Amino acid sequence: MNRILVIHGPNLDLLGTREPDVYGRTTLAGIEASLKRIAKENGAEIESFQSNHEGEIVSKIGQASAGFQAIVINPAAYTHTSVAIRDAVAACGLPVVEVHLSNVYRREEFRHHSLVAPVAVGQVTGFGPQSYELGLLAALSACRKGARS
Amino acid sequence: MNRILVIHGPNLDLLGTREPDVYGRTTLAGIEASLKRIAKENGAEIESFQSNHEGEIVSKIGQASAGFQAIVINPAAYTHTSVAIRDAVAACGLPVVEVHLSNVYRREEFRHHSLVAPVAVGQVTGFGPQSYELGLLAALSACRKGARS
Amino acid sequence: MNRILVIHGPNLDLLGTREPDVYGRTTLAGIEASLKRIAKENGAEIESFQSNHEGEIVSKIGQASAGFQAIVINPAAYTHTSVAIRDAVAACGLPVVEVHLSNVYRREEFRHHSLVAPVAVGQVTGFGPQSYELGLLAALSACRKGARS
Amino acid sequence: MNRILVIHGPNLDLLGTREPDVYGRTTLAGIEASLKRIAKENGAEIESFQSNHEGEIVSKIGQASAGFQAIVINPAAYTHTSVAIRDAVAACGLPVVEVHLSNVYRREEFRHHSLVAPVAVGQVTGFGPQSYELGLLAALSACRKGARS
Amino acid sequence: MNRILVIHGPNLDLLGTREPDVYGRTTLAGIEASLKRIAKENGAEIESFQSNHEGEIVSKIGQASAGFQAIVINPAAYTHTSVAIRDAVAACGLPVVEVHLSNVYRREEFRHHSLVAPVAVGQVTGFGPQSYELGLLAALSACRKGARS
Amino acid sequence: MNRILVIHGPNLDLLGTREPDVYGRTTLAGIEASLKRIAKENGAEIESFQSNHEGEIVSKIGQASAGFQAIVINPAAYTHTSVAIRDAVAACGLPVVEVHLSNVYRREEFRHHSLVAPVAVGQVTGFGPQSYELGLLAALSACRKGARS
Amino acid sequence: MNRILVIHGPNLDLLGTREPDVYGRTTLAGIEASLKRIAKENGAEIESFQSNHEGEIVSKIGQASAGFQAIVINPAAYTHTSVAIRDAVAACGLPVVEVHLSNVYRREEFRHHSLVAPVAVGQVTGFGPQSYELGLLAALSACRKGARS
Amino acid sequence: MNRILVIHGPNLDLLGTREPDVYGRTTLAGIEASLKRIAKENGAEIESFQSNHEGEIVSKIGQASAGFQAIVINPAAYTHTSVAIRDAVAACGLPVVEVHLSNVYRREEFRHHSLVAPVAVGQVTGFGPQSYELGLLAALSACRKGARS
Amino acid sequence: MNRILVIHGPNLDLLGTREPDVYGRTTLAGIEASLKRIAKENGAEIESFQSNHEGEIVSKIGQASAGFQAIVINPAAYTHTSVAIRDAVAACGLPVVEVHLSNVYRREEFRHHSLVAPVAVGQVTGFGPQSYELGLLAALSACRKGARS
Amino acid sequence: MNRILVIHGPNLDLLGTREPDVYGRTTLAGIEASLKRIAKENGAEIESFQSNHEGEIVSKIGQASAGFQAIVINPAAYTHTSVAIRDAVAACGLPVVEVHLSNVYRREEFRHHSLVAPVAVGQVTGFGPQSYELGLLAALSACRKGARS
Amino acid sequence: MNRILVIHGPNLDLLGTREPDVYGRTTLAGIEASLKRIAKENGAEIESFQSNHEGEIVSKIGQASAGFQAIVINPAAYTHTSVAIRDAVAACGLPVVEVHLSNVYRREEFRHHSLVAPVAVGQVTGFGPQSYELGLLAALSACRKGARS
Amino acid sequence: MNRILVIHGPNLDLLGTREPDVYGRTTLAGIEASLKRIAKENGAEIESFQSNHEGEIVSKIGQASAGFQAIVINPAAYTHTSVAIRDAVAACGLPVVEVHLSNVYRREEFRHHSLVAPVAVGQVTGFGPQSYELGLLAALSACRKGARS
Repeated sequence: MNRILVIHGPNLDLLGTREPDVYGRTTLAGIEASLKRIAKENGAEIESFQSNHEGEIVSKIGQASAGFQAIVINPAAYTHTSVAIRDAVAACGLPVVEVHLSNVYRREEFRHHSLVAPVAVGQVTGFGPQSYELGLLAALSACRKGARS
Repeated sequence: MNRILVIHGPNLDLLGTREPDVYGRTTLAGIEASLKRIAKENGAEIESFQSNHEGEIVSKIGQASAGFQAIVINPAAYTHTSVAIRDAVAACGLPVVEVHLSNVYRREEFRHHSLVAPVAVGQVTGFGPQSYELGLLAALSACRKGARS
Repeated sequence: MNRILVIHGPNLDLLGTREPDVYGRTTLAGIEASLKRIAKENGAEIESFQSNHEGEIVSKIGQASAGFQAIVINPAAYTHTSVAIRDAVAACGLPVVEVHLSNVYRREEFRHHSLVAPVAVGQVTGFGPQSYELGLLAALSACRKGARS
Repeated sequence: MNRILVIHGPNLDLLGTREPDVYGRTTLAGIEASLKRIAKENGAEIESFQSNHEGEIVSKIGQASAGFQAIVINPAAYTHTSVAIRDAVAACGLPVVEVHLSNVYRREEFRHHSLVAPVAVGQVTGFGPQSYELGLLAALSACRKGARS
Repeated sequence: MNRILVIHGPNLDLLGTREPDVYGRTTLAGIEASLKRIAKENGAEIESFQSNHEGEIVSKIGQASAGFQAIVINPAAYTHTSVAIRDAVAACGLPVVEVHLSNVYRREEFRHHSLVAPVAVGQVTGFGPQSYELGLLAALSACRKGARS
Repeated sequence: MNRILVIHGPNLDLLGTREPDVYGRTTLAGIEASLKRIAKENGAEIESFQSNHEGEIVSKIGQASAGFQAIVINPAAYTHTSVAIRDAVAACGLPVVEVHLSNVYRREEFRHHSLVAPVAVGQVTGFGPQSYELGLLAALSACRKGARS
Repeated sequence: MNRILVIHGPNLDLLGTREPDVYGRTTLAGIEASLKRIAKENGAEIESFQSNHEGEIVSKIGQASAGFQAIVINPAAYTHTSVAIRDAVAACGLPVVEVHLSNVYRREEFRHHSLVAPVAVGQVTGFGPQSYELGLLAALSACRKGARS
Repeated sequence: MNRILVIHGPNLDLLGTREPDVYGRTTLAGIEASLKRIAKENGAEIESFQSNHEGEIVSKIGQASAGFQAIVINPAAYTHTSVAIRDAVAACGLPVVEVHLSNVYRREEFRHHSLVAPVAVGQVTGFGPQSYELGLLAALSACRKGARS
Repeated sequence: MNRILVIHGPNLDLLGTREPDVYGRTTLAGIEASLKRIAKENGAEIESFQSNHEGEIVSKIGQASAGFQAIVINPAAYTHTSVAIRDAVAACGLPVVEVHLSNVYRREEFRHHSLVAPVAVGQVTGFGPQSYELGLLAALSACRKGARS
Repeated sequence: MNRILVIHGPNLDLLGTREPDVYGRTTLAGIEASLKRIAKENGAEIESFQSNHEGEIVSKIGQASAGFQAIVINPAAYTHTSVAIRDAVAACGLPVVEVHLSNVYRREEFRHHSLVAPVAVGQVTGFGPQSYELGLLAALSACRKGARS
Repeated sequence: MNRILVIHGPNLDLLGTREPDVYGRTTLAGIEASLKRIAKENGAEIESFQSNHEGEIVSKIGQASAGFQAIVINPAAYTHTSVAIRDAVAACGLPVVEVHLSNVYRREEFRHHSLVAPVAVGQVTGFGPQSYELGLLAALSACRKGARS
Repeated sequence: MNRILVIHGPNLDLLGTREPDVYGRTTLAGIEASLKRIAKENGAEIESFQSNHEGEIVSKIGQASAGFQAIVINPAAYTHTSVAIRDAVAACGLPVVEVHLSNVYRREEFRHHSLVAPVAVGQVTGFGPQSYELGLLAALSACRKGARS
């Protein structure tokens, strides 16, 4: 059975309770529920991890190959600044799918560049909570193909 | 019943027959078959359109609102150079989803910037033919929500 | 009698029917009518040409010297990307006046640079349909002076 | 009756007497005469103001709303350097039309960027003294529409 | 009674003991004492928080709206690199005032750009410990006005 | 008794009467009244000077050391363009505090860079009329410390 | 027998009749005649194709491997703007030689960068019609060596 | 008899009294005395003009051809920002020599670029008051040769 | 006896077990063993510290002067992004030697710039585990000279 | 009889013996033999000159007009850095053809810019030793036409 | 027995006699003596070579493989400008170690970029004469490993 | 008696015989004669040195302090590319005056930046052979003042 690690970056713990007009009213718990359903339909499992700490995310990715077959990550603000997360993704030996809730290409210039994207399998951007769902489907395919990011 | 227009940009007519080591062996016909199946499962229809001509793609998008509820587009090389396609997407009044077969963020610098992305709903990049499938799922959701790009 | 060629670039076929809050409700037909009236008052004639195809616009300019004394062009999206139209304008041997409906200097950064402007006689920007009318007056003057772009 | 303020920036007092091969032999007086005629034909009045001092131009624009319905301005060299004139234009509450005698896009790189253009209604460039005439026509239309820069 | 959260970024725990010729001999405790006095004079309270961890600062800001009416923050080195703190500030729903001990505009080029400033109410820079005092006065005013950063 | 020179740059004579939604309804006279009160409370005096002329501001700063112990300046538009004011500030031998009404870091890119900041004691930005008040407090402290910009 | 496809980009249909002082009086027909002679001397054949349409050139290159062993292309204005032609050249499986009549490095800055050059075998620039002749010799050598662009 | 206009830009009125360690103790009066002596030795006259106002310098240059055969100018801070002075120099019809007291190439980056230099005869930089003397010798030679800037 | 602190940045805990073809098979333990031997030969001691957390590294450096005479640091990914570590190094009062396993100048452009290097004594790059050994020798020399970074 | 000077820049003395997989096994002697044959067929002579010294190449070009009618030069590494060779080429009064063995546009970014190209007749790039042969043919044509670089 | 070539670039002949406060009082002879001792301890030999001529350094590197197993080079000023030395290093077939006396990252911006570093094994920077010693140790290791730059 | 070294950079040996319309008909011998006369009038001597070799110029400057009190140098093309000459000038311990015949600020962009200027006393540009004469006068003054570049 494939196990997929889903990582949520900084400030995502507040999802659904802050700026609902911008990010919608769906909470992390809501996203997790729908990802669990999709995983189950595909004979897989997910585990969710949220942290505001770059170092914790780096460590989590570094240990992921022991228990997971793929990673779905929304690096949030660290997308644009963390070479450490990029290096962890490049080194982890698992297929990694990058997702974003909002269409980052409509926002500030500095959000258009992802340090993670060149070392990920691919990227899903702009579809709200559905970005996670599509990203999970892509990660599950990557597991099936034995793909490696 | 929702009807989705799927647009393939320049050089994609050669898909599957040229540089299979880079782009894989799936042809446009193969992609179309799988998209039709997914559309059918969701009570929708797709129509495919391929052109190497920027002007034809502009015209196709300009006329799309008469017969379609959403667009999935792989602008290929025009992603990075066509302000005209961007303007057509922005003006068409339909949700538009941008897809790419390869992970453009691993390729030449000039492929990292999309003129279309800021006026699309979102972008799916790097999952091969599955990029189209995920993009179609996103377009179908957008139809359901009455989303507008 | 002076004959002026008026060229409308990509997406302008939709003028007045799409995004009326941005571009107003005047259609190309409406603009043409008012240009015809002004031309007539000045003892001249106009011919209108719209295309979404860069190549067709290049060809039209290339053949213009056979039947026209000046050109008024709104290159729209091709203003910023078409070296081919620039080269055609530079080579055509006629005075060319560049016009824009909207004030491009209020829009995205990439719209501030015109490849055509350095080889045109001059530019009129931001006055809506009146940009065409002022551009036509300038083109008529250029004819009278035997000016050459 | 509409009253239009026409502002001439630095060095334009020398117009017609210096570098006639570049700027032509028309003087400011000549331009003023033709603008007066056009204003009269349109039931309006103009008042001309020339200054080499950035601060005087800022003050003139700041006081314009008390006696004028629109401004035509050739900021000359200050086009490219004066944030103060830009701010005055943005704050004055009148439609402002920017004009240039020469085609600035054919000259040095630093003349291609206008600080004023993004806060003006529009810009007329490259038609010699006729640039003022076309600019005045645009300003008169703006008055009629109650347009505001 | 208004409660203001005062956040000190990385390396500020060493204030007053290291490089006193550069940063002076005032310690964080000294700054805190004077801020408490000012708060008291204004019928308010402050709470101080220092951390070298970007993630802890993000979390602290994320939870601030539960117990505070405004934030005074010296993001120190994270001013120039932390999109996560910027996002937290933008999302926290409180007025945030950014302060710096030294005049960052006299130092290395990379210190001239603040990621936090565009989402803060305002910035006070270069007055040593007085920067905090002025920042606190500004934050208290913001509370009174119900301002929101 | 310390005397502080308060300098207001271009367009600030219109404060409170133009664009009140942007800059508020406080006039220069209102700001002056509150600064006088603060000065008096601190046993000091202020003198206000407004000019739209860069040269007049340069001259005023050049003569300031004869009658003042510090300067508070809002260079407005000249903040970003005037090397002459920067040189005058650097040469005047008095502590100079730079203030801005609006948060310039939220506005156009060209407003993010101050030529004056690297030669001033410090900067206060974004608190409306309170920016002047905080700046005056900082200038008074600088007088007490015999600080020199 | 080797067959070489010779492609002429936009505006080259006017060669010899427009701006003869710049581009000389040789026409495309004249160039074709001399290329035919050289091909014959080398036991080969050429076929010429001119188009102002980027899309037609893309399609022509896409189909070239069916009937040709090499391509000589003067992409003219599309050299600097067409990612689509670059992608077609990269995908076509034939050696491609890029030629230019004028010395593009003496012209505007934007003409110094070729999108095609990095995917071509090599480039011949600046020798007028002789550029085509030298390019054909290089293409014939490439055929003999079974070179691939 | 040749008459040379010597123009001193902003802040130079303070020369010798402010920052003597940087600019030395020579005053404008001292420089003028030595220039008068050199002029006399060469059968010429000089007239000195200092202003902190960009507009006054523009006007002075604009009127210079009526009474002078050449100009020596130290544009000081306006060197780097004044397109208006550049345009005045270009239009004045006299040879203009640019001088600087300090070696501007040792100072801040923004002082390395002169807007005036490309339209002056030449530039003398870094020799303190001697820069004026060498500049005057160059201007006198230019007069003798009937040179024109 | 000199005590040297050796700091390993993010992802280095995985050294030797991940991507051995890139980083070799030596582990941190192996590096530590060889550094201990070199330290002993030179009558010194080392202590190793690894962390994925920027904040922990900042804190460790901030406390180092209490127990160490020098620091050898491989900041890994934080080399390019951490102003906080740079500030800690600059403030710690000990000589700091920066080392890198791989030749960062052969890798992506963003790895060519080190925020730490300008405040370190020097840098050793590209010699694999030997980079640490050479760095330790340099740190020991710095201790002997009482050098200070 | 035309005499052509063939100049080989730095490191080309090693051609054919170093990195044969990159540059092939042809030596300078081999290239010289084939150029002599081509020269002879065209009733001309060549002389070869190789140097690793920028100064020697400058001197050689400076003296070339005494004994040669044209120059073929492979400036190698100096292509991108030598303003001195550029100036010598511009001053020598002979047609100069620039050649490169490898396709420089496929290599590092800094090799894409040639200082020599804008002052040469034209450039041949990417065809290995054949680049020299085609360059010689172009130089011979230039002699016949009395062309001047 | 391994033989190592040590190359000193321009101006290093003056080491120890000029600017001793910057570069110290050690001369090249002193450095050579200590390198000879280290080489001897490791059963190797060194040969020193100093030149101010880029071409001589290029030639020396080009011939090095005949008599040496590795190179230690301090390219001094040529580090930042010489593509020719870079090409020689890349082509020489020996491991090359780059060393610098001073910490170049503390100096002018243009000294931060090395053309040699990407083709060297590694770089040692900032430790004064010890940089050569550490570089020699690295070169000796490279010999032992049969490493190749 | 002061002795001044006059250094002429690459291509200046051809002065007066090549491109006389650009550089005039004065030869180096002519310049030398007039410099000798000026030196004699000032009780000094000059020695001239021309070289096309960067390394020779570096060596000449390195040895200059043994026999000269100042240097006048026209680095010609090396002005813009030679860090080695810059370093030699900075290290030589003599006042160095940089001169240029032509106004480099009217020429190509890459000629606007001098690597030598920041380490020279000053610069004289654009007065033809008189640039040398003015530069010599400045060097003589520097000797008298015991100035040091």
